[in-house]
Amino acid sequence: MKKVYLDNSATTPVLPEVRNAMLPFLTEAFGNPSCLHEWGDIPRDAMEKARGQVAELIGANPEEIIFTGSGTESNNFAIKGLAMAQQKKGKHVVVSAIEHFSVLNSAKTLEKWGFEYSMVPVDKYGAVDPEDVRKAIRGDTILVSIMQANGEVGTIEPIKEIAKITKEKDIPFHTDAVAAVGNIPVNVRELGVDTLSLAANMFYGPKGIAALWVKKGTRILPLLDGGIQEGGRRAGTENVAGIAGLGQAAEMARLQMSSRIVQLTQVRDYLIKELPVKISHVVVTGHPQNRLPGHASFCIEFIEGESMLMLLNAKGVGVTSGSACTSRALQASHVLLAMGLPHEIAQGSLLFGLGIDNTKEDVDYVLEVLPPIVERLRQMSPLYSKFIKQNKGG
Amino acid sequence: MKKVYLDNSATTPVLPEVRNAMLPFLTEAFGNPSCLHEWGDIPRDAMEKARGQVAELIGANPEEIIFTGSGTESNNFAIKGLAMAQQKKGKHVVVSAIEHFSVLNSAKTLEKWGFEYSMVPVDKYGAVDPEDVRKAIRGDTILVSIMQANGEVGTIEPIKEIAKITKEKDIPFHTDAVAAVGNIPVNVRELGVDTLSLAANMFYGPKGIAALWVKKGTRILPLLDGGIQEGGRRAGTENVAGIAGLGQAAEMARLQMSSRIVQLTQVRDYLIKELPVKISHVVVTGHPQNRLPGHASFCIEFIEGESMLMLLNAKGVGVTSGSACTSRALQASHVLLAMGLPHEIAQGSLLFGLGIDNTKEDVDYVLEVLPPIVERLRQMSPLYSKFIKQNKGG
Repeated sequence: MKKVYLDNSATTPVLPEVRNAMLPFLTEAFGNPSCLHEWGDIPRDAMEKARGQVAELIGANPEEIIFTGSGTESNNFAIKGLAMAQQKKGKHVVVSAIEHFSVLNSAKTLEKWGFEYSMVPVDKYGAVDPEDVRKAIRGDTILVSIMQANGEVGTIEPIKEIAKITKEKDIPFHTDAVAAVGNIPVNVRELGVDTLSLAANMFYGPKGIAALWVKKGTRILPLLDGGIQEGGRRAGTENVAGIAGLGQAAEMARLQMSSRIVQLTQVRDYLIKELPVKISHVVVTGHPQNRLPGHASFCIEFIEGESMLMLLNAKGVGVTSGSACTSRALQASHVLLAMGLPHEIAQGSLLFGLGIDNTKEDVDYVLEVLPPIVERLRQMSPLYSKFIKQNKGG
Repeated sequence: MKKVYLDNSATTPVLPEVRNAMLPFLTEAFGNPSCLHEWGDIPRDAMEKARGQVAELIGANPEEIIFTGSGTESNNFAIKGLAMAQQKKGKHVVVSAIEHFSVLNSAKTLEKWGFEYSMVPVDKYGAVDPEDVRKAIRGDTILVSIMQANGEVGTIEPIKEIAKITKEKDIPFHTDAVAAVGNIPVNVRELGVDTLSLAANMFYGPKGIAALWVKKGTRILPLLDGGIQEGGRRAGTENVAGIAGLGQAAEMARLQMSSRIVQLTQVRDYLIKELPVKISHVVVTGHPQNRLPGHASFCIEFIEGESMLMLLNAKGVGVTSGSACTSRALQASHVLLAMGLPHEIAQGSLLFGLGIDNTKEDVDYVLEVLPPIVERLRQMSPLYSKFIKQNKGG
């Protein structure tokens, strides 16, 4: 059977070049980079090379890159570390309603620690209005966190415009760019943010390695206390193999960015155009233009998403109905609900994360196997029967 | 030139079997274990297999194992997570003076959060007296954290005896067993602790992966907020390759434990016996009997440790003078100072972390190259000149 992996927003495959960059650090170059003897030299050099590669991908200085263990850790580090470092100035934080749970739940933890947070809404495309951020900012606001791109609906947020407001008010601005970095051009100076999260497994690097960019001079407290690794900002023995893989993935993303975008956009646009032609009652979710190149998301009405995934899986197609981090919780996406979609439509969510290996033929296969699945599920749906009945009556 | 790696307390090489267990997850089995489609199946199964392997090594139930990114993260998670979860009962924590900085600095962070902590002393061998723990416990003590074995001087602490006291007083007891697990038999039920940290790179697994064992029913708050991975206790996309490597390393450690201990103890005892014969004015540090099998540590009087490391490195020998996590800080070890060694002796610290590849011949090489290095450095030492002068005069 044909196998089509279309869940690159959950995680990407590891490129062979990335794996090869990692292997020396799982064999002869196993040393601890903190060591003073020669076994530490090659690992330490590899780390600094990778730091440069990551910095170059996002237009940063290498010394501003702090390696972490996941995008989630980077977001926890930023939200908690920035808030705790600025708490003498105030205890109010602004986030958007469609942030990743690593941001939202960090904000909830801050609340337990005596902070307050406000959530700015999004429009029907999942876009934040910068003026809503301005309105949410109070005299005691000490942190704004808005993601650069949403991994569930692909929408790219107006970060530059929001940064103008946070700069004007001198408030630190974090952006969760985990879904964006490596997939669209990201330049931290142009964005105007103060901290930014990225993760290797979103752009063909390994899982378990990520980074937080912290603009020079930004006050932030560590999340992990201990030794003096990463300039004392993130303790713990470094995942050298992972770091080398992240660096290699960053370099390849930078060099191949334009061609990847052209290819992905073409396949994505084909899917977004054709799927609603083949299947009735489909809502395309996310922004029509400002969206990630490989990202296509829909709500298939009168359908429960999980069953659709299972049946697609049986046809060799790997897709998701939302964030991998919560997919096993089987709840309607907070992102879709924040965009104003009713619960019964949100539960028919279907998210395609196209990757650099995907072709128009992969989409054709989906367009062939999905319509009968939808038809079959709708036959069993009480909502659909009701709808058909009403329409006949009308 | 001969190369002799003797810094296994900083990090161990990765065994070929461990690397092989990791590779599928950096190639075809790249899927996100949280995914509902088949790409998630093999990674998820691998994680659960590894969870079982780690659990078996320490006599735990698999569902009590939480994977983390480092021993440091495990310790931060335990100290902060346990303290925050019990804070309604009190805000006092007890640690020992020779804990790893990931424990000590977490305790300092708790202090900033309104907690207090007491440090129990150690004797000249680096051993904690359980009665000192009893004395340090107050009515508002809600956490005790004493390491199982010290990575700098090799001393194994009387954890069972301390656990009797904490149980009697119903106080959660964390042990940082990073230096111990995989190297000596560790059984969490026999120890009687509530949480326990371990790290793969201390027993021939990769860097960047570790675990916290949390006894069923123990109240602990997450350090990393976000998705529902690890039962909601540690969010973030899982480092599947690292987890598989940790599992394989745990299984091999369990199966080879006895033979490794026999071999390492033999080489270690030879080093501890012969080094003071070849070099005058040497203090053996750590406990004479209760010490890690591969661990030999000394203070070479009238010497500054870093210079000794550099000259040993030039002879192809990789050793350290203290914890890798702080070796670049070039400060005298807090462990040796807590053991009552004067600063000028502590600075001549030399720590051999023997590994399963090391032989008696490796020790013979050290015994050949080290004495002339020590002699050369002592010729340049004002302290040594003074000592010789005084002795001649006396």
